Amino acid sequence: MSAQQFLADFHHVATIGATPANGVDRQAATDEDRQTRDWFTQFATARGWHVRVDGIGNMFALLEWRPGAPYVLIGSHLDSQPLGGRFDGAYGVIAALHAAEKVERLVAAAGVGQTVPPYNLAVVNWFNEEGGRFAPSIMGSSVFAGLMDEDEMLQVQDLAGTTVAEALERIGYRGQDERPQVAGYAEIHIEQGRILEREGLDLGAVDFSWYTQKLDIEVLGEQSHTGATAMSDRHDALVAASKVVVLVHEVTRKFEDEALVSSVGHLTLEPNSPIVVARRVHLVADLRSASPEIVAEARASLLESIEGVAREHDLTIHVNDFDVRPIQHYPEDGIVLVEKVAADLGLGVRRIRTMAGHDSVAMNRIVPTVMMFIPSAGGVSHCEREFTSDQDMVSGLSALTEVTWELVNGALDDGRKGIAERAMAMEG
Amino acid sequence: MSAQQFLADFHHVATIGATPANGVDRQAATDEDRQTRDWFTQFATARGWHVRVDGIGNMFALLEWRPGAPYVLIGSHLDSQPLGGRFDGAYGVIAALHAAEKVERLVAAAGVGQTVPPYNLAVVNWFNEEGGRFAPSIMGSSVFAGLMDEDEMLQVQDLAGTTVAEALERIGYRGQDERPQVAGYAEIHIEQGRILEREGLDLGAVDFSWYTQKLDIEVLGEQSHTGATAMSDRHDALVAASKVVVLVHEVTRKFEDEALVSSVGHLTLEPNSPIVVARRVHLVADLRSASPEIVAEARASLLESIEGVAREHDLTIHVNDFDVRPIQHYPEDGIVLVEKVAADLGLGVRRIRTMAGHDSVAMNRIVPTVMMFIPSAGGVSHCEREFTSDQDMVSGLSALTEVTWELVNGALDDGRKGIAERAMAMEG
Repeated sequence: MSAQQFLADFHHVATIGATPANGVDRQAATDEDRQTRDWFTQFATARGWHVRVDGIGNMFALLEWRPGAPYVLIGSHLDSQPLGGRFDGAYGVIAALHAAEKVERLVAAAGVGQTVPPYNLAVVNWFNEEGGRFAPSIMGSSVFAGLMDEDEMLQVQDLAGTTVAEALERIGYRGQDERPQVAGYAEIHIEQGRILEREGLDLGAVDFSWYTQKLDIEVLGEQSHTGATAMSDRHDALVAASKVVVLVHEVTRKFEDEALVSSVGHLTLEPNSPIVVARRVHLVADLRSASPEIVAEARASLLESIEGVAREHDLTIHVNDFDVRPIQHYPEDGIVLVEKVAADLGLGVRRIRTMAGHDSVAMNRIVPTVMMFIPSAGGVSHCEREFTSDQDMVSGLSALTEVTWELVNGALDDGRKGIAERAMAMEG
Repeated sequence: MSAQQFLADFHHVATIGATPANGVDRQAATDEDRQTRDWFTQFATARGWHVRVDGIGNMFALLEWRPGAPYVLIGSHLDSQPLGGRFDGAYGVIAALHAAEKVERLVAAAGVGQTVPPYNLAVVNWFNEEGGRFAPSIMGSSVFAGLMDEDEMLQVQDLAGTTVAEALERIGYRGQDERPQVAGYAEIHIEQGRILEREGLDLGAVDFSWYTQKLDIEVLGEQSHTGATAMSDRHDALVAASKVVVLVHEVTRKFEDEALVSSVGHLTLEPNSPIVVARRVHLVADLRSASPEIVAEARASLLESIEGVAREHDLTIHVNDFDVRPIQHYPEDGIVLVEKVAADLGLGVRRIRTMAGHDSVAMNRIVPTVMMFIPSAGGVSHCEREFTSDQDMVSGLSALTEVTWELVNGALDDGRKGIAERAMAMEG
């Protein structure tokens, strides 16, 4: 039975790079990432599907029933955060493989005189969605969508100085294959929030992605002796940076509950010696909201309060905007399609926004894209205790299978034309 | 002229590992440290002094005029902080080499019938006083004094996983020579504070070292997604750690100005990814005061407020005491000797405490020890703009030369007996 086989595969992949506390550690282009890639290849080739690997390490398993026609892509990513969860990304890829298998059977079972679907199908495993080892995140799909430059991304280094190009070479997944021509994209992912759980629903039809932006912050103080330097003579970069971290955390309180999320996840100090007052701290703040105005207001408030910290400690703080990702709306007909499929399957569904970035956000820039969520227990993710029940995963697989069938049969063709027209209008 | 030659040597050594902003970067057992060691060896062997290197990389240049007699040691350390100053440590070693040269001439010039001094003389370059690469600091002299275990220290690793033993092997300074038998110790160092500068004095006679202690602090939160996790669901280890850093900074305000100094110089977070809320932060706080009661009060206050931070963020914070260094008094007759020498040379002198740790603090535990300071411009140290004038350095050299002459002639013999008696009493 296919649901059983899907669950067996899912729980098998969760053993690759497994951590003692039930998570996985499979950062991009590590040996653990290679093992899941090998598993993906084996799954596809065992079914006679041809696997292509492009220059940035994206993998495509191709199901071609109409030679020369473009492909509907379905998938997600098999890489994880360090000590990440086993559902984030992997669920979407494994569900896509099983959805593809089912759709292939449906195509093969079509009666005499029925034509095969107008679009071919490919399952994709995007490279480096997480960005924990190589920043920025959502790298493979962004290169695919033309939003990031491939050569530039290949030169990105991890903390040990290894480039993306070298790391991909090392695991044998720096490909040279042509990218498939793409007609549409669908992805299913855990929610990473607790709205579905709270409302007892099975499925989310993602309507838009939150506005997100990062601030690159550099605090330049003066190195001095922790023991011998008088407190009044210090310009302690870490004390100032700590106040910035707290400000970034507390700025959310200026707005309604959960209207804004913000945090600092990355911070390094120099020289980082127990008996030396730090001269330099570098940190990255992450601001996200459904409202660009709220992000703008929070950013302005932070700039002002950070300037106050710099004055108070008589040091310099540079703040630069980067990685600004505007709100992206998913096509309305895709959302309606998910609602229809859910109704057909008897699943509870609601429209939902995504606060996290996803490969589908990049793909939505170039083709009609459908994004679905299944529940996350407690809303936790990017950690080992991330959890979704087998039942929720199987319900999601059914929804993805139906959506995929509709997409290869041209369900979003109007939207595709719409995107083509928008692209032409932008060029014009 | 000897002052000119001393200054030429000092400014030459400052070119080894020189940084663009006038500092030096010569961390322990790096190639730059090796170069200063080679220079030290060359200085000694050119004068016929035998050089010994012990198992922890301490170097001794021996001047023996009374075979079999113990040695008075004089010196300091040639290693530096990363982007450190060119005076901290190096001044004391180079001054000691020149003081030794002068004392050797005095011994050689002694008239017929005059006996040579009762003690021999050795110039020492202690290994890893700074502790920036390999913690703890004051390593070489502490091993020499029996306060730290040599085998344990040889296994200490830097951030790249290199051990002290490997690093010393690599630069060719892991010795096997016997340690000289020691009768007394003298060191001269920059003040790293601005008391001498403020009072227009040339010399400080160090009377005691501050009480110091460190707190090893581990903040255990929960890893989660910076975008998708609701603010109210987070247990952000970095936000809590940042509050701890600010508390450690601000606890000094509970006491009189400069009665307590405190800071966090070392902090690491995991996983340190821009889009992941940190699960763990490790940091080291450093507390110092002339009063053990003030440190105890500050520590108690911090423990209480840190407990409050843990409660507020619903996470765990472990705090452990380590590297507790009680107040050490230098022998009174050594202080009086410095005051007498200063008067003879026409130098302004005062008694002064040290807030920083020094090799002399370790040596003072086993032999009569004299510690002197010369002024530091602006009191700054452990940074590139550390500065002391040539004139102040030459005055200090004169004082060290005189003190050395007195020590090899037995000036602190009463104190030495005192220490032997104290040691016997402790064993008894």
